[in-house]
Formats: sequence, C-alpha cells, structure tokens
Amino acid sequence: MSDSGVVTDCPVVVERDGEIAIVRLHRPDRLNAFTDEMCERILAAMDECDADDAVRAVVLTGTGRAFCAGADLAAGGDTFVLGDDPDTGGAPADQGGRVALRLHRSTKPVIAAINGPAAGVGVTMTLPADVRISSDTARFGFVFTRRGIVPEACSSWFLPRVVGISTALRWTLGGRMVPAAEALAHGLVSEIVPPDRVLARGIEVAREMVTGTAPVSVALTRQLMWRMLGADSPEAAHRADSLAVYLRGTSPDAREGVESFLEKREPDFPDRISAGLPDLFGESG
Amino acid sequence: MSDSGVVTDCPVVVERDGEIAIVRLHRPDRLNAFTDEMCERILAAMDECDADDAVRAVVLTGTGRAFCAGADLAAGGDTFVLGDDPDTGGAPADQGGRVALRLHRSTKPVIAAINGPAAGVGVTMTLPADVRISSDTARFGFVFTRRGIVPEACSSWFLPRVVGISTALRWTLGGRMVPAAEALAHGLVSEIVPPDRVLARGIEVAREMVTGTAPVSVALTRQLMWRMLGADSPEAAHRADSLAVYLRGTSPDAREGVESFLEKREPDFPDRISAGLPDLFGESG
Amino acid sequence: MSDSGVVTDCPVVVERDGEIAIVRLHRPDRLNAFTDEMCERILAAMDECDADDAVRAVVLTGTGRAFCAGADLAAGGDTFVLGDDPDTGGAPADQGGRVALRLHRSTKPVIAAINGPAAGVGVTMTLPADVRISSDTARFGFVFTRRGIVPEACSSWFLPRVVGISTALRWTLGGRMVPAAEALAHGLVSEIVPPDRVLARGIEVAREMVTGTAPVSVALTRQLMWRMLGADSPEAAHRADSLAVYLRGTSPDAREGVESFLEKREPDFPDRISAGLPDLFGESG
Repeated sequence: MSDSGVVTDCPVVVERDGEIAIVRLHRPDRLNAFTDEMCERILAAMDECDADDAVRAVVLTGTGRAFCAGADLAAGGDTFVLGDDPDTGGAPADQGGRVALRLHRSTKPVIAAINGPAAGVGVTMTLPADVRISSDTARFGFVFTRRGIVPEACSSWFLPRVVGISTALRWTLGGRMVPAAEALAHGLVSEIVPPDRVLARGIEVAREMVTGTAPVSVALTRQLMWRMLGADSPEAAHRADSLAVYLRGTSPDAREGVESFLEKREPDFPDRISAGLPDLFGESG
Repeated sequence: MSDSGVVTDCPVVVERDGEIAIVRLHRPDRLNAFTDEMCERILAAMDECDADDAVRAVVLTGTGRAFCAGADLAAGGDTFVLGDDPDTGGAPADQGGRVALRLHRSTKPVIAAINGPAAGVGVTMTLPADVRISSDTARFGFVFTRRGIVPEACSSWFLPRVVGISTALRWTLGGRMVPAAEALAHGLVSEIVPPDRVLARGIEVAREMVTGTAPVSVALTRQLMWRMLGADSPEAAHRADSLAVYLRGTSPDAREGVESFLEKREPDFPDRISAGLPDLFGESG
Repeated sequence: MSDSGVVTDCPVVVERDGEIAIVRLHRPDRLNAFTDEMCERILAAMDECDADDAVRAVVLTGTGRAFCAGADLAAGGDTFVLGDDPDTGGAPADQGGRVALRLHRSTKPVIAAINGPAAGVGVTMTLPADVRISSDTARFGFVFTRRGIVPEACSSWFLPRVVGISTALRWTLGGRMVPAAEALAHGLVSEIVPPDRVLARGIEVAREMVTGTAPVSVALTRQLMWRMLGADSPEAAHRADSLAVYLRGTSPDAREGVESFLEKREPDFPDRISAGLPDLFGESG
C-alpha cells in the first residue's frame, strides 16, 4: 500500500482504503498517457483485486491533473504502428481492448473516478466500469477520427449501450471533445464533483455498493447484467437466473440474507468469491 | 368479474372495465407477497386474457397499500431453497421468470399500475410490461444482493434495456431501494400519481393504446418491438417486417385502416387475434 | 446540382453544398408521400454519394412544408397490397426497409433535416440516420396500428435502440402522433429549430462531423458503432477493433493524424473511401 504522494517508476499504483482498492494510473508528468507497460500493470492489478477477498470494489483513478491523455504519442507518426502478432501472424490484440475486457470480467464493482481530462483510450477504458464520476475539470476526447484511427477498447460495444446510439455516433464520428456537463447530460458520468473530491466520492460510492451486500451475489449480478445486455432474448436470462437462483437459494448467504432481514440486523455473509463462482452460462463444459 | 372490495382466498383476482382486464395481486394482509400459487394464478389470468378477444389490454395492479413485497418469507432462511426439477433433476425454472416470460409473450399491451412498494420479484415481474405507472408511495427494492441471492425474473435482460446499463448496475449491485422520483428520472416508470389514482390512470393509458388501433396490429407490433430488441441486426427486422407488411397489407384490417382514414371516420377493424397470428420469426417450422 | 426551387418530375433531387450532399424528397404537392419510384431514387442517390469521395456527408430533407406524409394512399384500400416476390414467390422486400438498410450501410454520416410532419415510412426511414434535426412544425406519426398494418423499415430494430424500449412501445402500440417537443425529450431528435433553419442547421452539423476528421476513419467508426450495437458481446468488438486499429495504425492517415496534432495544425488526410474499406467483420471470406 502506498499513498498518492508516492514516488515510483511504476505506471500503475495499487492502494487500499479498507475494503476498497484504488488502482491509480501514475505517470503524472505524461498526463498518465497509456503505454504497453501501463496496460500490463492494470491487468495485473485487476488480477490481484479479484484474487483478494478482502477487496470488495475497485476505484480506478489517475495521479495529477489528468486522468489519462490517451496513447503516449512519444513515437510520433509511428505511434499506432503495431507489429504482427507473434502467435498468429495476424492483427495483435488491441491493448485498450485487453484492459476493457479485463474490467468487464471483474468480479468486483469498478468505479472510475475521473480526476481530469480523459482522451482516446483514456476514456474508452472506463466504459466497462459500473459507475463513472467526473471532476468538473474533466473533458472526454473521442478524438479517434481526428487521428486517422478508430474508437477501440471495445468502445463500439460499450459506448452505445452506456449513452445511446445517437449520442455515441455524434461523439465518435465527429471526434468530439465532450465537456463534463455534456457527459453528465447524456449519462456517460453519473455525477460531477470538484477535482479534489473525485477520489473520495468514488470511494464513497464503492462503499455504498458493498456495505450490506453479499460478495458472491454482487459478482454474479454484475455478470448477469453485463452478459444479458448482449443476449438475444429474455429466455437466455431465464436459463441463467434459474440456475443462479437455485444455487444461491441453497447457499449460506441466502439463509443469512433472509434471517438478518427478519431479525432487523446487519447481515454477515459467509460465502467467498475465492471459493469459486458457478458457471451460469454453460460455457465451461 | 369482481370489484376490489371482494373477499376471496385466491391470491390473484381478475376484473374487467370494458375492454380492459385488471389482474390484481390479492394478498393485502401479506403486502401481496409472491407465492407459487400466485405465480400459477397470474399465468392462468394471462392465458384467459389472451384467449378473449373482448380483452384489449391488461392492467396489472395490487390490492391494498403495497404492490408486492417480493417473495413470501414465511419459510424464513429456507425461503429460497428449491427442490430439484422433477423432470430434469436440474435447476427448476425460476417462478418470477415464468411470470416475466408470460407477460413478455402477451398478445395484449400490459400496463403495470404500481400502487405501492414493490420489492424483489414485485418489481422485476413488472419489467416486461409496456408501461409502468407509479404511486407516489411506491418504492422499488432491487434488494437481491442484500438477501444473498441474485436479480431474477429475467431482469438481467429487461432492466438494462428499460433504464440503461449504468442505472441497472447502480441499483442492483448495491441492492438499492429506489424512491418513485428516482424511478421516474431513470425511466423505470413513465409517470407518478397519487395512490388513489394509479389504477384509474393505468386504465386510461391502456384505453389510449387500444382505441382506434387494430388488435392484430397491436399484437404483432408488440412482438416485433420486444423481439427485435434482442436481434443482432436490422436485417433480422427486415425479414420479419417484410413478411408482416405483406400479410397485413392484404388483410381486411389494412383496407379498413386506409379507408377510414381517407373518409375521416373511426376505424372498425374486423380481424381478431383468436383467429391466429402469423409466425413472423420463422420458428414454427 | 440544382437548387431547391428546381422544377422536376423526379421525386428525389440531389444537391450539393461543398462536401455535403443534400438528398431531397421532392413531391411537395403530395407532401412528399413515399412511392416505389421514390424508394429507387433514394437508393440510387445514396449509391452516388457513397461512390463520390468529394461527398463527405449526406443531409436528407424534404421540399415544402412536410418531410414525408408516409406511403402514398392514392391506391386507397389497396395501398398496402403487394404482389408476390417474382424471385421467391414469397413476401417481397418491404420498400421502407430497403431504404433503411441502405442508409444504415452508408459510408458517410447521414443527417435527417426533418422540415415538417413525418408519418409512417416518413419517420421510420430516418431512424438509421446518425442525427435527426426537427422543425418546430414537425410531428412524428407512428400510425401503423391505426392503419391495420405494422411498423416497418426495420423500425422494430432501430426505434427501441434510439428512444428506448418503453418509449418505442408507447408510441407504436398506441399509433401515436408525437409532437416535436416530445420527440426531443425522448431523444428521437437532437434539436428543434424553426422550419426555415432546418436544412441550414443540418448542413452545419454535417460539416462539424467531417471537418478535421479522416473519411475512412469516419466510415469505419460508423460501421463499428452500428454493427456492434447488435453484437452479443464486447469480445466481438475486440476482434473487429483489434483488426481496425492494426490496419488504420499503419495507414498514412494515422501518421498524418498524429503528426498534425503534434504540430498543432489542421490534418490533411490522404486515404480515400473509394480505394476500398477493410472487412472488419470477417464476412467476405
């Protein structure tokens, strides 16, 4: 654990505030510009949070005045030139997409505390977060078409689902820099606070989600909501949640949930994510 | 037909107001808590409404001060313990999901007139309704993670499509009790009225939908909108609505629709749902 | 190129304002009612715009006081009676759907400048546009169930994605005539202006989208957003945008995009749509 004044060469710092983990993009002299190493460090930090039952939620934020300026442009015109994938000889995996999918698969809620400007992958990587809280100094740069590239990090899947297709098109086709107030009006962020309140507010919201809730229930609910957002019919949800209701219904957590409610006391849920989550979607067979 | 002062042991009462059927959850001394019998009675009531051409729309409401308090917790810690499915030996079908899918498949519009608090399955069962009208006394309890279980009744499919994924996550991960005003702000309900106006307003809205509209057109439109909400491309809709336009275009209803419009008179549509609906999605073969 | 005072028998007129093409429904004496010939002419106009690199965006509007009154009812009660498809003996393709799918597949942004009332196919054909701007004189008639038919032009796919399922159901089941203000409140249109400002504002918005953006990036972004709106998972987007990032990253456009940004000058993107777009979705093989 470290505090935000830490001096380190690592571009991602993981801190703790009780049961909340803070994953901090940490290249303040480069406006936290995204690099391959930052990518790997975010993936490792998420693995660490998922594996630790003492962590109940993750707050993703940045050090300094920016959240993330996007891809590091130090390589100039060659910035977006990638080598072939050594394994397949084909297109290598988009690094932003690897981060987005990792956040998507988190077993803990993810809150993005966007402390300042977020551009390119700096904004698209936050789309799989469950909540986005914005500094009033933030702007959201969907600038891809202005750089000759395309929106990445699976944002063509996430963005229309978060802000609606009309807003997603307006912002991305035109390569818009979106002010915080417009982001709030269209639901990209749920609230705007002063920059020095963003992290504290992110932690508050994270704590709200985990206090009095069962970790395994939260993990499965997160899977169900995100997964069924892409399902073709409610019948798919019926199959998954029939199984989930059946398995959770017999769990010690469900007993504790009902009994604590009837006894009007705080629940103390015994089940742990590290003991394994059921496969609700019939994929492991 | 009965009125709301009726004394009965049946947990669901079906009433009629002209061409509107009122399906009423009726365990007022238990805040209309959901039971297996209530489930079966709702399914039967929907079958009855679908089979009767004189019914044009369904209003779902509750007797007394609550809409539905959720699963009946009389069994305490064993409430959510289910037996294996006798047919499959596997997970039995979630009862809330059976209700949700039945409302989803209704050939008539469904209006939920939510007369008071709705928790657990009490709120999730209303998500496949076409319109939700709320009493100002209502609250919506997405309390699943606080009971150690998960959102059910196909709500992982319906809720994000009704209120958006960000709101759905905020409410369900945290197990929130959502006040009526917040429900309105996020589109869960379309309007808020005093408790003694909820049913009357539900009937008004239902009547608005069926007056001057063709029953078969309404049934097929309801199928198209809900089904294509899960379709992967507009091409799927093009196949279904090319067929629907072709079949309906030659119908007596279409002739009456155009002629009554040109003659500036109210239409009198001859086609009936009981004569059978075409299979627009190529599933029956 | 022609101006709006042009006298012609052709039901669709294509004009140009710099890099913006204006596709104008042009049967003002019939409130631009939709016919088979109008359908073919819109398809041809879109082909022309797509093939011409000098066109960067398309504005779809109507001549006179209406945008489009819907299907031409000159055939009275036989209006919606279609012959069998000569090729298949089955249902012929819905003409509105052909227009909707063609707009959907446009490689250039499409802005609907809705200069007055739009009913039936007059409103559904605009749903695949990226932006809809409304005259304060416009109304939107989702009148299908009042004519004994069903919503067409793939609107069961587009409408719930543009305005949400609850609003889509409310409007279509009841056959509602929706005023401009209600259309704005539910996101069907992004702004309302006086009728004599609609076209000019449409051109402004189109220009905003294309100024400083790379044509190929805009075309691919438009494909990604619309296509992934129907995809079942973010993994599908990850595959498509890994390929897109890889291919665009090595393009002259990406080099110009980054260099112009670093040099704080306007970009001059060399790549052209007419040279061909990559197949991001693995369909051509």
